[in-house]
Amino acid sequence: MDRVVVIGCGFAGLQAVRQLAGAPVEVTLVDQRNFHTFQPLLYQVATAGLEPGDVAYPARTIIRRRRNVVFRHGRVETVDLEGRTLRLGDGEVLGYDYLIVGTGATAGFFGVEGAAAHAHPLYTLDDANHLRNLVLTRLEEVDAHPAADGPLRLLVVGGGATGVETAGALVELLRVCIRYDRMRLDRTRVEVMLVDGASRLLVGFDEELGRYAAQTLRSRGVVVRLGTAVDTVTDDGVRLAGGERLDALVVVWAGGVTVEGTLAGSLAVAHGRGGRVAVGEDLSLAGHGEVFVVGDAAAVPVAPGGPAVAPQLAQVAIQSGRHAGRQVLRRRAGRPTEPFAYEDKGMMATVGRRAAVTQLPNGLVLRGTPGWLAWLGLHLVYLIGFRNRVIVLVNWCWRYLNWPGGPRLIDADAGPGP
Amino acid sequence: MDRVVVIGCGFAGLQAVRQLAGAPVEVTLVDQRNFHTFQPLLYQVATAGLEPGDVAYPARTIIRRRRNVVFRHGRVETVDLEGRTLRLGDGEVLGYDYLIVGTGATAGFFGVEGAAAHAHPLYTLDDANHLRNLVLTRLEEVDAHPAADGPLRLLVVGGGATGVETAGALVELLRVCIRYDRMRLDRTRVEVMLVDGASRLLVGFDEELGRYAAQTLRSRGVVVRLGTAVDTVTDDGVRLAGGERLDALVVVWAGGVTVEGTLAGSLAVAHGRGGRVAVGEDLSLAGHGEVFVVGDAAAVPVAPGGPAVAPQLAQVAIQSGRHAGRQVLRRRAGRPTEPFAYEDKGMMATVGRRAAVTQLPNGLVLRGTPGWLAWLGLHLVYLIGFRNRVIVLVNWCWRYLNWPGGPRLIDADAGPGP
Repeated sequence: MDRVVVIGCGFAGLQAVRQLAGAPVEVTLVDQRNFHTFQPLLYQVATAGLEPGDVAYPARTIIRRRRNVVFRHGRVETVDLEGRTLRLGDGEVLGYDYLIVGTGATAGFFGVEGAAAHAHPLYTLDDANHLRNLVLTRLEEVDAHPAADGPLRLLVVGGGATGVETAGALVELLRVCIRYDRMRLDRTRVEVMLVDGASRLLVGFDEELGRYAAQTLRSRGVVVRLGTAVDTVTDDGVRLAGGERLDALVVVWAGGVTVEGTLAGSLAVAHGRGGRVAVGEDLSLAGHGEVFVVGDAAAVPVAPGGPAVAPQLAQVAIQSGRHAGRQVLRRRAGRPTEPFAYEDKGMMATVGRRAAVTQLPNGLVLRGTPGWLAWLGLHLVYLIGFRNRVIVLVNWCWRYLNWPGGPRLIDADAGPGP
Repeated sequence: MDRVVVIGCGFAGLQAVRQLAGAPVEVTLVDQRNFHTFQPLLYQVATAGLEPGDVAYPARTIIRRRRNVVFRHGRVETVDLEGRTLRLGDGEVLGYDYLIVGTGATAGFFGVEGAAAHAHPLYTLDDANHLRNLVLTRLEEVDAHPAADGPLRLLVVGGGATGVETAGALVELLRVCIRYDRMRLDRTRVEVMLVDGASRLLVGFDEELGRYAAQTLRSRGVVVRLGTAVDTVTDDGVRLAGGERLDALVVVWAGGVTVEGTLAGSLAVAHGRGGRVAVGEDLSLAGHGEVFVVGDAAAVPVAPGGPAVAPQLAQVAIQSGRHAGRQVLRRRAGRPTEPFAYEDKGMMATVGRRAAVTQLPNGLVLRGTPGWLAWLGLHLVYLIGFRNRVIVLVNWCWRYLNWPGGPRLIDADAGPGP
């Protein structure tokens, strides 16, 4: 029976697996993490609104009833495209007849000096956990020494959806820390700042929604600085392109992602902008029709024949993963593959409580409370696992009903007794 | 106003704070962790039944409405009993008029060679997290190489409540991993073993309950070896006192705790067995009536004047912490302190699903399903925070209704994309 290996159990890989379940192929799903991460809610983990387990779901639970799918916990080190094998971190070599690569991206620092060392990205669950521990630890340090000088700024670099959502959630966290946790944070000195080199927020969304996001963030206390490129990140702040220095307790990196440095980035094939793998109309590699690259890792074409590349969104990952799974089955059946066409289902970003933006493909936009309710509902529906849905719902009710008993735990410090 | 410092927000420290809330004193609660840990359920975190956040609760949420109490996140390095000050890890010195020390204990290896390096204790939330990641990672490794030789044993050292509960939960985890997660674990080779040097389980409980626990564990597949002392722990197993070697994937240390190596253990005062601080009838230090030591850290007398020392149980911590808080108020009011008397409220340990033992002070014992229901109910009631209660209840329902979608996440591995 044909062996199909799917690397990565993100949105793309899982959709590919779903297409292949029950088909007469042996599927191996490989991931160095043993769980799927619901990335759209990572920013809530980073800002202490949700627990890590709320947005993660065990890979083995997902494939439980898919008897032709096995999970392999491990990191793929190299792929031999000619030999049709891949090598895992523990030395094992897996052969494949078809390969679907959905290894995602990683934080991209685009040459900003010091960013890799001192800015904190938000792409994986580990990132989110780390950021939560760091933000809360820094705030506890300020509380312990309220009279000390120094920065009281949480700085978010990047004005895309991740940056807007994180900045919005950080002001809400500060409010909880001051009002409910009675932290001694001087309101005249503490601030959340969002900086971006572009002249507007949420590039890719309707311009009106970018303005709305900026207005709403500002009305909630976020300092939004547009047209402001970051030149250097240090351990206590950033230097802007113009030379100005901004102190910061924490620098959150929402400045973009890259495929360079990941497995897909290392494939000896053509790469596009940000290291994204160049794929054909059917999402397979040139000269290797048996290998598909999907999701954030690939330069997924928006439409057949066109030069436009789809943004790195969950919907693109879902649709491209599904497409690749289907093409494997078509090729096995001796049928020609189909070209991929992205179906725009709209985009969403939340700015904070009762404020989100939703842009539908027909041009309709929702914002404010209706946008937020749409956002809440859609994220609950897409969240994998009924248990996770219930628990996230409980958490959100608690938070939005003003009972901030959320998981503001710093779980990284160790050692015996207090 | 008198300054009271309470070190540690475990069961003992929290009860002391509760007594002092609203009184005309300034209370500072100090802990190196910013949360209370519900230790009786740690074994469920270690065996992937609950999320870390389910059994932890933010310290600042607990004291939210206690306006005379502030929380200080930090590690106490030293206490100067004569100068009535303590020094924190960041160099700050706090003065006190009264001090309540509830710093708990730490894993005690009692001279077993290699145990500190290779056995994995289960006393803190970090321990539980670490153990969960380790057990799941080892099982994934076995799944990846099912034909390899080598040990397939999870070995628990210690037959007290923690050891019994952990061993029982590990067989349930194995069952889920094999039956639902389709891990390739050879049932004829994989086993959970519990070893203890004593001739029975659950020393301290009624003998009948110890026998019931052993029978139940054995009927569920745990190999229980009593009268078996561990001499040495290595990275791949243990050597018993008689010289026999037992391979193991993971060695869980439930062999006891010690106060040595903790802050309380370092106090320049008299210490009893296991480093527990010798305290007077009112739980204060000899010559320092303004300092109380409570909970696991202290050799808490069972009854005034008697030599008997209470076991290191949650109930003893709760009652001794409450007592110390009250004595501070009595001393402030110029009244003599009262002697502490432990009120036995019984003991419980769970062996697994529908099997727990409960021993009431009147001699009545419950076991099996009634004992288990009593255990479930009591732990839910004592769990701090309504949100945590709801979420733990949801988790338990999921698990015990045979929908094992629990949080079997290995969250410690990092690095870019899969």
